[in-house]
Amino acid sequence: MFHLPKSIEILITELAKLPGVGPKTASRLTFYLLRAGENLNESLGRALLNMKEGVSFCHECFSLAENQICSVCSDSKREKNLICVVEEVLDVLAIEETHAYKGLYHVLHGALSPLDGIGPSNLKIIELRHRIEKIQKEKLIPEESETQNLEIILATNANVEGEATANYIVQILGSLNVKITRLARGMPTGGDLEYIDSLTLQRAMEGRREY
Amino acid sequence: MFHLPKSIEILITELAKLPGVGPKTASRLTFYLLRAGENLNESLGRALLNMKEGVSFCHECFSLAENQICSVCSDSKREKNLICVVEEVLDVLAIEETHAYKGLYHVLHGALSPLDGIGPSNLKIIELRHRIEKIQKEKLIPEESETQNLEIILATNANVEGEATANYIVQILGSLNVKITRLARGMPTGGDLEYIDSLTLQRAMEGRREY
Repeated sequence: MFHLPKSIEILITELAKLPGVGPKTASRLTFYLLRAGENLNESLGRALLNMKEGVSFCHECFSLAENQICSVCSDSKREKNLICVVEEVLDVLAIEETHAYKGLYHVLHGALSPLDGIGPSNLKIIELRHRIEKIQKEKLIPEESETQNLEIILATNANVEGEATANYIVQILGSLNVKITRLARGMPTGGDLEYIDSLTLQRAMEGRREY
Repeated sequence: MFHLPKSIEILITELAKLPGVGPKTASRLTFYLLRAGENLNESLGRALLNMKEGVSFCHECFSLAENQICSVCSDSKREKNLICVVEEVLDVLAIEETHAYKGLYHVLHGALSPLDGIGPSNLKIIELRHRIEKIQKEKLIPEESETQNLEIILATNANVEGEATANYIVQILGSLNVKITRLARGMPTGGDLEYIDSLTLQRAMEGRREY
């Protein structure tokens, strides 16, 4: 029987632990790395070992930061009366790419999912309440802002967990004097009406706007 | 604008160099690694840095080996009069998994592909000829073998490059007294006749066998 060298087998096992990478893909990647020039395995290996170096979570919004405060929270040009609540740091990146949002963020680090054992205490929900209370108490919104009213935009995913999380946050923030909004639901751009599921179509109908 | 910490950006860039991994998958993997327990990033990083440790190519068949000779070539139970020529080490693994082949291998490390700049000198083709000449000259096939005739099984891929490589090897080995065979072509197991392409069906018809 043919045996692979041990170091190769270890690498295949480790790669197969990544999401979406099965044993077949793991061996293909390994053999690619064996032949790839420029010592890709070394640069990738070092990048992995160093990945957590100088990386922390922002004390304000729990996004990724190199210092205690992330580049969005420390940017004086951002609108301080808008807080967009997202599930993951990747969602911040997605919204930033639209260049359509100039407010702040709040990263929950997940969504409520009782089946996976993720409850409110695993998410940054109470931290969101404390943050809002602090902003209102210390009047942190600059006076030149368009409005002094804080708006919380719930931008959790449009699935069961995201909906449940949004509903829970609405309850938690209920007693605070803030405006709470939710991302619009409707037809995706480029969507073909014929192929859109009926729930999306129903939401698009409900949310119709005047020209 | 939101900036990711530098060490995270470097990791995303490195991961995106892997085949089949685009920038989106690379960021998803990175954020998975950030949250994954057991320091997966460290074990994977170390596995990558160590991957080439103690790994060499077999001096006989150019498969992977921990010593100078791989586990197949050094196995006295393998049939020494059979050499299966494959493109990659992964092909050796695939054939070994069938448990149906007990001979030796010869790994070419690629297939002829002029467009990609891969010519005969980039492959282990002349090494195959030298290997056969050595076996014949030094009578390396044990006397208890079923036959003293060497059989070379061409198991390159069933695509244009694989076919071209097989044809080229037939030419190179032409003057040697060896039996050269090719893997059977036909319907894959579980294949539905209705959906099989016509070339495969034609080959299956040509290669039909008596019950």
